[in-house]
Amino acid sequence: MADLVVVGSVALDSVATPFGKVTEALGGSATYFSYAASFFAPVHVVAAVGEDFPREHLDLLSGRGVDISAVTVMPGEKTFRWTGEYGFDLNEARTLDTQLNAFAAFRPALSPRHRAVPFLFLANIDPDLQREVRAQMAEPALVALDTMNFWIEGKRDALLRTLRVVDVLLINDAEARMLAREANLVKAARAIIELGPRAVVIKRGEYGALMVSGGEFFFIPAYPLENVVDPTGAGDTFAGGFMGYLAQRGSTDEATARKAMVYGAVMASFAVEDFSLERLKRLAPDEIEERYGVFQSMVSVER
Amino acid sequence: MADLVVVGSVALDSVATPFGKVTEALGGSATYFSYAASFFAPVHVVAAVGEDFPREHLDLLSGRGVDISAVTVMPGEKTFRWTGEYGFDLNEARTLDTQLNAFAAFRPALSPRHRAVPFLFLANIDPDLQREVRAQMAEPALVALDTMNFWIEGKRDALLRTLRVVDVLLINDAEARMLAREANLVKAARAIIELGPRAVVIKRGEYGALMVSGGEFFFIPAYPLENVVDPTGAGDTFAGGFMGYLAQRGSTDEATARKAMVYGAVMASFAVEDFSLERLKRLAPDEIEERYGVFQSMVSVER
Repeated sequence: MADLVVVGSVALDSVATPFGKVTEALGGSATYFSYAASFFAPVHVVAAVGEDFPREHLDLLSGRGVDISAVTVMPGEKTFRWTGEYGFDLNEARTLDTQLNAFAAFRPALSPRHRAVPFLFLANIDPDLQREVRAQMAEPALVALDTMNFWIEGKRDALLRTLRVVDVLLINDAEARMLAREANLVKAARAIIELGPRAVVIKRGEYGALMVSGGEFFFIPAYPLENVVDPTGAGDTFAGGFMGYLAQRGSTDEATARKAMVYGAVMASFAVEDFSLERLKRLAPDEIEERYGVFQSMVSVER
Repeated sequence: MADLVVVGSVALDSVATPFGKVTEALGGSATYFSYAASFFAPVHVVAAVGEDFPREHLDLLSGRGVDISAVTVMPGEKTFRWTGEYGFDLNEARTLDTQLNAFAAFRPALSPRHRAVPFLFLANIDPDLQREVRAQMAEPALVALDTMNFWIEGKRDALLRTLRVVDVLLINDAEARMLAREANLVKAARAIIELGPRAVVIKRGEYGALMVSGGEFFFIPAYPLENVVDPTGAGDTFAGGFMGYLAQRGSTDEATARKAMVYGAVMASFAVEDFSLERLKRLAPDEIEERYGVFQSMVSVER
């Protein structure tokens, strides 16, 4: 069992989907990631919030054993807020408002203890910051990175430099195509491997995910849900399950990574069943194992 | 090893994709199906063509051992022609022209020999005709059906009657949603099972396919191709590999059907690598087994 560090956002999200809405609910990439990963391994969050951030949200993470000692409360600042909505095509969010607030001045400086942690997840933040954090780490076993269209378009050179110093890129399919400048997803995945990471995990929403590493492809479907309520945080929750399992096993080999992909998909499948972290808060470890078993049965050619 | 009958179209297709074009090339649902299935089991085609249909195309099918004794040449008629094009999103064809010709008066009457065949594929034709053919069969082991948006919208009641007398529906995801009048694909699949078939196979183009039967889901990805040239016929080729393998094994149980799904996806992956049946014509049985092996490795969680 190894520890994990995640650097990313802790936020207040206002989200509307065809199935309801929430206002200033707990959100943020580091939140979803750490909550999901906490089912598998010890997690340390590096993030910044404003003075207005409700204490109960931090208590929620602490309650899961998440180390929040590096969640800085920025004096005089408000917490990062995101407002978005989804139509019936839940694959794509429409951002209505983003207020960086405390997040704008976020310059993560890791403690000696956090620098020695073997597993690092760089959630979707400025690629220059991601690289700065990476440089602070002593000798990590695995560094994984998320990014988005905003950085691919706006800070491409910085992102390319960062890609050279990470092991795994987690990205959605549209972003993979954009990053590789290649419409064919197979070619795009191979092109991304040429950019530095030794593995790329491409998330395809309701169509599941694939991992390309060492020239091999591995595919998993999305869990067949009858009711998807809010896809916000699904990608970070996937990353939390994926990285959490790798850390739990203390391994990054292909066989472990494949199981980690399934745990990632399992965790994401719970996250989207309700707004914010509501479903994850009701989640029991037994349910994770049960859904993992269903996943295996859904993809087994030989039974 | 059991025999297969397919009832559908034998056509001349003019197709343009971003990667080239062909004019009046061999096409049609029964053509793709029978050619693909011929790698697995003896196939009998029931179809109608015009007097202008090139003899070489029938020779091509005969050369694969396909029984073309029930391909009727309609006196004074021309062959069914379809003209379509695809943009860079190869998932959706745009039909530019359809000339039913010989196909308009097609009233399949099966010979006693064909009525006794255990596996029947009703390709995408008028659901009333599909049901008439079904009624002619003695005691089939498995009847599978394809259909399309045109019939779902235009002859819904006839289609619903036909669905009550078939075992498997093969359909694409948009059509599944349209048929079930349900946006959620999981609910749509379950609703379709309520309409009659004991299994539904939903094809999702580049995202693979899923099968729902006995309350169980089974997912496969699409083969990761770097170059998709023309998706025309992919669905019928999938059906040919799927039904062909079932007939070869003489079984319709879940374990056999899962392997059949992989063979369907393997055959479809070859079909789309070139226009018309060009890639299938160059296909060696070894290549099928090789790609089947790659498929298994791409979806195996435990290796």
